[in-house]
Amino acid sequence: MINIAILGYGTVGSGVAEVCRMNQDMIAGRAGETINIKKILDIRQFPDDPFASRVTSNADEIFSDPEISVVVETIGGATFAYEMTKRALANGKHVVTSNKELVATHGPELMALAQETGVAYMFEASVGGGIPIIRPLNKCLSANVVTRITGILNGTTNFILTKMEKDGIDFAGALAEAQALGYAEQDPTADIEGHDAARKIAILASITYGEFVDSEAIYTEGISQITTADMDYAVRLGSKIKLVGAFRRREDGAADLIVAPMLLPGSHPVAVADDVYNAIMVEGNALGEAMFYGRGAGKLPTASAVVADVIECAMHIGKVPHLMPWKRNGRDIVSRHADCLVKALIRLKKSADPEQVNRLCVQYGADWLESAREGEQALIVGGAGNLTEQALAQVVAELGEQVLSRIRIL
Amino acid sequence: MINIAILGYGTVGSGVAEVCRMNQDMIAGRAGETINIKKILDIRQFPDDPFASRVTSNADEIFSDPEISVVVETIGGATFAYEMTKRALANGKHVVTSNKELVATHGPELMALAQETGVAYMFEASVGGGIPIIRPLNKCLSANVVTRITGILNGTTNFILTKMEKDGIDFAGALAEAQALGYAEQDPTADIEGHDAARKIAILASITYGEFVDSEAIYTEGISQITTADMDYAVRLGSKIKLVGAFRRREDGAADLIVAPMLLPGSHPVAVADDVYNAIMVEGNALGEAMFYGRGAGKLPTASAVVADVIECAMHIGKVPHLMPWKRNGRDIVSRHADCLVKALIRLKKSADPEQVNRLCVQYGADWLESAREGEQALIVGGAGNLTEQALAQVVAELGEQVLSRIRIL
Repeated sequence: MINIAILGYGTVGSGVAEVCRMNQDMIAGRAGETINIKKILDIRQFPDDPFASRVTSNADEIFSDPEISVVVETIGGATFAYEMTKRALANGKHVVTSNKELVATHGPELMALAQETGVAYMFEASVGGGIPIIRPLNKCLSANVVTRITGILNGTTNFILTKMEKDGIDFAGALAEAQALGYAEQDPTADIEGHDAARKIAILASITYGEFVDSEAIYTEGISQITTADMDYAVRLGSKIKLVGAFRRREDGAADLIVAPMLLPGSHPVAVADDVYNAIMVEGNALGEAMFYGRGAGKLPTASAVVADVIECAMHIGKVPHLMPWKRNGRDIVSRHADCLVKALIRLKKSADPEQVNRLCVQYGADWLESAREGEQALIVGGAGNLTEQALAQVVAELGEQVLSRIRIL
Repeated sequence: MINIAILGYGTVGSGVAEVCRMNQDMIAGRAGETINIKKILDIRQFPDDPFASRVTSNADEIFSDPEISVVVETIGGATFAYEMTKRALANGKHVVTSNKELVATHGPELMALAQETGVAYMFEASVGGGIPIIRPLNKCLSANVVTRITGILNGTTNFILTKMEKDGIDFAGALAEAQALGYAEQDPTADIEGHDAARKIAILASITYGEFVDSEAIYTEGISQITTADMDYAVRLGSKIKLVGAFRRREDGAADLIVAPMLLPGSHPVAVADDVYNAIMVEGNALGEAMFYGRGAGKLPTASAVVADVIECAMHIGKVPHLMPWKRNGRDIVSRHADCLVKALIRLKKSADPEQVNRLCVQYGADWLESAREGEQALIVGGAGNLTEQALAQVVAELGEQVLSRIRIL
């Protein structure tokens, strides 16, 4: 019997308990031993829960218990969860988590500590929820130089954008619906402003480099400025607007990284992901393209990825599963945003001075696009593939108040 | 330094050497040691190859060399490759392969032998070429009861069907083009008759059960009977015709398995796979749906999956990576084909007796479909979800020569 503890009995934490119960025999068969949830740490009580008697608010009961060999951290955030994870690892317990914020922020320290104490720190569930992506990238694509990752990494924003596209409602309305359905939190900032996606693309890039990639160094733009008018252009272009996390490895090894809403051709494989689904396209120099698609969030899908890591830990009690940790090497892998190449749609008021626009078209290689709406004009800039983000910013600045919106094109 | 040998220097075998050369430093970084191709077994000579001097036709040189710790088997087939694999494992060498025929036929024996001698038998490349699927299913989805797998598992047939659909050419023409491009072999039987796909879906089902699933017990239908006329109906139905390998776990644990051309709704995620691409949708009872997509064949993609396994072996010299082998339990997991439920399109000659057809419509719950072509009629049977394969066969038999074609609908 393998005894585990769950820290934080919220959505994912209680999902872990539910998956363990639901698939108990099969999990025991695969792990080689029964998985027993011995303790659950939470300050709340759950009197009606089948595991009610295991709930404690005293972390010491867990860390001082030599029978508990695996700890599931589903607290979230990077403060209390960080302390708890350090204590668990320092006490020689394997730690499994779905906490992308913690992995993206303190991953290198926690992986180093795990190595020191001879245990594992596993986080398959931190990116893509239930979709296998961490292990495939670590293990299956390990013979490739990964040259590009393009992902729809956040289910909340994808739900909102899909609602806007399909039902013609505006951002505020779609957000309210997402909140009503439990797909968006009451404070939705981390999702809608792109921070969650930035952490996830940083984790994926860190794996490909074996080095820490700082999510806070990634240029990040959210979706709150997207309007139904923008959606009209998506339709005109046979595209969808998606919050994309994109990584490109330059020839010199630097990493172009961005999180922003983008126009994505409807024929692009990741465009298959609507609603709360995620899709992640990975390109390797031997593999070509591979894509991973599925439920990027949600109680049971995410929990199933956590429990898979628990099973792997259970199979490795006394030995460490080798997971290619990444380290802080003190260099900036993320390239300067201003230098990155970009293509974008710019929507302009009808009143924009045609001479000025034409001059910019010549100077920056822009092309007119037939307007999808009354009373406005539209340009596509960067079509030739040599426009920098800095130049895009200049174009937008020169056009000033004439600009209705600008959206990048993948 | 880790010394490896490659058995069989054909497309995949030489691709393995190419990937090892191309990404040498990165691979060494991940494996922890340099990977050195010490010997290549082939009866041919490759005088212009960078590894020409390592080629030998004497297998003893490899098996008796204690320095060689990993053997890559890219011979293909289940006879000589079987002997070579047994010798390698018996001599305590890890074996990595892309050989689905061998894994599907003798997998349990080879995995058992590997366990006995404390080495690994790894075959990520045997299904989906470069697409990660074996390890994700084994490791990432291990907390799920896998209820369904739906895959486009064969690149050759997918190329042919895509050509027929997009260019309006017939099967023979599309096959000739596939052969000219090297996507189909001169004897294309294993691909076009569905045997290759049957082996792959058998391997995936074996993983989910941890038990041997016999590919030869799977009802298998190829694509050589598909016509451009059938494609017209696909268009009419907003569908594509794909060679699908499908697994469904029944409530009682039995496995419904089939390989056959099917009409697949264009909106189904796996329909994104055209040309030589593969797509595999897996459904788990906690996860919901996840899909894996990419190049299902080809020299470098497949080789990159082989080399990833070599890296994992290199990281485990002296220890065995735990891979959940499957065993022969002597029971028939595959359910009786005649009992499986099915939905199908039946194309009929205009001359079919309307009374007879109407009688069958009532008896078997068929519905008329507006014909997509002059001079014929069409029915959809099984729409209510309770038609068995046996009943479908009866309908087709009763209609006799009036039947132009019948294609299953996913």
